[in-house]
Amino acid sequence: MSVAPVGLDHVTTMMCGSCSNENAFKNIFIWYQKRQRGEATPFTESEIQSCMINQAPGAPKLSILSFHGAFHGRTLGCLSTTHSKYIHKIDVPSFDWPIAPFPQYRYPLEENVRENAQEDARCLAEVERLIEQYGKRGIPVAGIIVEPIQSEGGDNEASPEFFQQLQKIAKARGSALLIDEVQTGGGPTGKIWCHEHFNLPSPPDVVTFSKKMQLGGYYHGAHMKPSQPYRVFNTWMGDPGKLLLLESILRVIKQESLLENVRRTGDKLKQGLTEAQKDFPHLLSAARGRGTFLAINCATPKLRDDIVGALKQKGVLSGGCGEQSIRFRPALIFGEKHVDIFMDKFRQVLKEVK
Amino acid sequence: MSVAPVGLDHVTTMMCGSCSNENAFKNIFIWYQKRQRGEATPFTESEIQSCMINQAPGAPKLSILSFHGAFHGRTLGCLSTTHSKYIHKIDVPSFDWPIAPFPQYRYPLEENVRENAQEDARCLAEVERLIEQYGKRGIPVAGIIVEPIQSEGGDNEASPEFFQQLQKIAKARGSALLIDEVQTGGGPTGKIWCHEHFNLPSPPDVVTFSKKMQLGGYYHGAHMKPSQPYRVFNTWMGDPGKLLLLESILRVIKQESLLENVRRTGDKLKQGLTEAQKDFPHLLSAARGRGTFLAINCATPKLRDDIVGALKQKGVLSGGCGEQSIRFRPALIFGEKHVDIFMDKFRQVLKEVK
Repeated sequence: MSVAPVGLDHVTTMMCGSCSNENAFKNIFIWYQKRQRGEATPFTESEIQSCMINQAPGAPKLSILSFHGAFHGRTLGCLSTTHSKYIHKIDVPSFDWPIAPFPQYRYPLEENVRENAQEDARCLAEVERLIEQYGKRGIPVAGIIVEPIQSEGGDNEASPEFFQQLQKIAKARGSALLIDEVQTGGGPTGKIWCHEHFNLPSPPDVVTFSKKMQLGGYYHGAHMKPSQPYRVFNTWMGDPGKLLLLESILRVIKQESLLENVRRTGDKLKQGLTEAQKDFPHLLSAARGRGTFLAINCATPKLRDDIVGALKQKGVLSGGCGEQSIRFRPALIFGEKHVDIFMDKFRQVLKEVK
Repeated sequence: MSVAPVGLDHVTTMMCGSCSNENAFKNIFIWYQKRQRGEATPFTESEIQSCMINQAPGAPKLSILSFHGAFHGRTLGCLSTTHSKYIHKIDVPSFDWPIAPFPQYRYPLEENVRENAQEDARCLAEVERLIEQYGKRGIPVAGIIVEPIQSEGGDNEASPEFFQQLQKIAKARGSALLIDEVQTGGGPTGKIWCHEHFNLPSPPDVVTFSKKMQLGGYYHGAHMKPSQPYRVFNTWMGDPGKLLLLESILRVIKQESLLENVRRTGDKLKQGLTEAQKDFPHLLSAARGRGTFLAINCATPKLRDDIVGALKQKGVLSGGCGEQSIRFRPALIFGEKHVDIFMDKFRQVLKEVK
């Protein structure tokens, strides 16, 4: 709870990122239906009977809206909101849930302010249209799931204004906003939670976490707590051993001021990447991200793979994401001297690749 | 692998029971579609495109057949195969997948052989009818999931003949057979895997595990292995720390002959329960189960709760399952002297309850 996002004073612990999102979806569906039937209204006999055979009204047709390019996990509920690579999805049955476009910005951001604001508006209009359309089709949007930076899908970022507007739409339409911080949470953006960068006027309804947090789970407000016991449950409900690891990690983050380190190092790394793309404009573009959670585009998918391979030969592990991006995911202790070493090797590679 | 079910020489490790079943479903869907399109046939462009927006043919309409009373977990895929208690399912959207009746036997088994064989036949005929029906509806049954003893649903057992016939139907219809040993696996039935009691002519296609096994996962044959990498994946893919625990547990089970202990103790406990139901026929019936994985029915749900409560007052933890059953889940080290202590207190309670 010492690192709970502001305003979210409940936490439900889980095993991994997928089951965190799955159970967060359930919490959202339960909350949505409670609001539909009224707080104190009991279940009807018809709901009780029909849910046991997977049918409405007990198992209602509700949906979670997600974004193209998103990755939220691989179990069947999560996979219906994942749209990053076909190999994750093909052959697996899916819920018919709406998918909105996620902003695709032009870079550098400061030279494309008007175009990118228009891109935000286009995507948000599509969110509204889909909520409307799925509502009419009898599959209301109970919640919206979004990554603060689309990670697996190519490190696609969106503006604070985009997230503020998205929250406004969610509130107006009665849908919950779930921010999936499984990959971004735990410090790599220079704050414990990436959505702290967005200055949202009120907290999101649910924030899921895993990976750097050692175990899975989600933070949520009191309104998301089911009124009855055993509606969200798991044999282990997390892992006390992992919590001990997490406590130590959080202590070290504080003692060694690692978030400040990430911000300082991240600024330097981003500047290095920006300079590199100016010097190698035929190879690189769109340096982007927050903290050390950074990425850059390569001219082609092949070039990306070549650069990642050549870096490896020089002892540097980097990773591909999306079609032709390189993503940087250094540990929180990555310092300014490491940026110097990395940029030196990166520039060597850029000179050598064809 | 030292305790892999005979004939299943692959294991995929996971975090918990739910994600084990979810990923086992995915393996089954991938296997089923590979057989449909032909082993060497590549994905079509239409499959690749449509799966990204949750639509057929890429996200095909396929189903997993489950049984009334079953419990297979709480994430959205698993929950579509869980039918034990409405509070687990209500308000959560579900896949429209077929649900067959699970045998409801008359007890004592030896006095109701013909009736119970007819009950097997009735349930199996319904399995065949549902596979036919869902095939015609365009939602073919890719797999069948079944517990060797329905645990959460009331410790409902089925005969070896039922499981042998079920496997025969699955093979004839081209559906995979998944045996969910999350609750029964790890020794409590007197064998590491409960389905070893069934003398199946060939191994099941998939066996899932968790709980007593310390971490989740599933055993499967080579035919269930996807041809491409990263189709079944998770950040952690299990937990090496838990594997170390499991290794020690398996060593102790062997060193101390705990499976033999479970069989011996289980026989004695079952005999005690059978005698108790003869002496208190207005209170108890249907003593059943394998090893120490035993249960008995009470005359009413209230009586069950009263007995469980009164046992607790005497320092004995037991648990309810189904409508009016008590389930016994002692540790593997529960010995004959513990049976004596338990039966003494149980009989005291039976004399005291109204």
